[in-house]
Amino acid sequence: MEPGKEKLWEKTVDSKPIFDGKIIKVQIDTVELSDGTTASREIVKHPGAVAVVALKGDKMLVVEQFRQPLGRTEIEIPAGKLEPGEDPREAAARELEEETGYRASELIHLSSFYTSPGFADEIIHFYAAEELTEGTLQPDEDEFLELTEITLDEAFEHIRAERISDAKTLMAVYAWQLRTLTGKWPV
Amino acid sequence: MEPGKEKLWEKTVDSKPIFDGKIIKVQIDTVELSDGTTASREIVKHPGAVAVVALKGDKMLVVEQFRQPLGRTEIEIPAGKLEPGEDPREAAARELEEETGYRASELIHLSSFYTSPGFADEIIHFYAAEELTEGTLQPDEDEFLELTEITLDEAFEHIRAERISDAKTLMAVYAWQLRTLTGKWPV
Repeated sequence: MEPGKEKLWEKTVDSKPIFDGKIIKVQIDTVELSDGTTASREIVKHPGAVAVVALKGDKMLVVEQFRQPLGRTEIEIPAGKLEPGEDPREAAARELEEETGYRASELIHLSSFYTSPGFADEIIHFYAAEELTEGTLQPDEDEFLELTEITLDEAFEHIRAERISDAKTLMAVYAWQLRTLTGKWPV
Repeated sequence: MEPGKEKLWEKTVDSKPIFDGKIIKVQIDTVELSDGTTASREIVKHPGAVAVVALKGDKMLVVEQFRQPLGRTEIEIPAGKLEPGEDPREAAARELEEETGYRASELIHLSSFYTSPGFADEIIHFYAAEELTEGTLQPDEDEFLELTEITLDEAFEHIRAERISDAKTLMAVYAWQLRTLTGKWPV
């Protein structure tokens, strides 16, 4: 811990498991704050995920799929959960090929970010791919996907129409714009 | 539903409550897919949140705080949960003032995005503020925050050092860069 940051620190004094699902786990942690008081924190544990900004010339690959938490379909960049012990880069290559049928010559790591650090430990490892070759389409058994390619202007239209409305896909569109304007991917 | 998108659709056939917490709820939904098979979906329900890209000249306001799901502190843009029935714009104004002590003359709505559409319905209403006036600092009782102002170069350093590592704050830095390069906020 950095000097002067002690007051920000929280110490875990208890952790109560609530739910152990196929994908997520839920627990209630009790933490001691720097003023000696305690607080409870509801925490979702997640295996982590990967997502790929895959460019094919002046278009980006996206998949439309139903999202039960939203009760509707959404257009998103190719993404998926990490298998236990799986290397994020290999997972990104796997998900890209399974969902789009394309292989990336190179996967450029853009960042790894937490989606909801207030209540979940889900991290998304975020990659870009600019050179694609044909591979094998192979969606998961309980997933129906529709693959499309969109231009940057079509991406803006989908954002306005709220058909693109998730964090990773908005970030992908922002990163793609920055790539176009500056000639390089953002930090 | 759009014509041709029927195969993407999922129909909820059962919903089992698992956990009803102070902030999140958890349920397991059973859905029927378009091929007649069923699948289960673990869903986290969240009240929704707001976040603000607040610029003060060539600096952005950020707060460092401990995040129990990550087990460490993180530097993020001002943000917080919606109160029941609260208007997102009012919540953004409230959270900005509580966490930074500044009021925004105008809050520009940039987008509203789902953080983890695969398992959670959390939506973040994302605003920008460019003209700030002095208000009253008033952090939540169980929150310790450290307010700082950072330049764009400092933001890049924090991203490289993984002290900025959450989706909304990375999006804020991307949006700020786009604002700087194009003279306007992104779609």
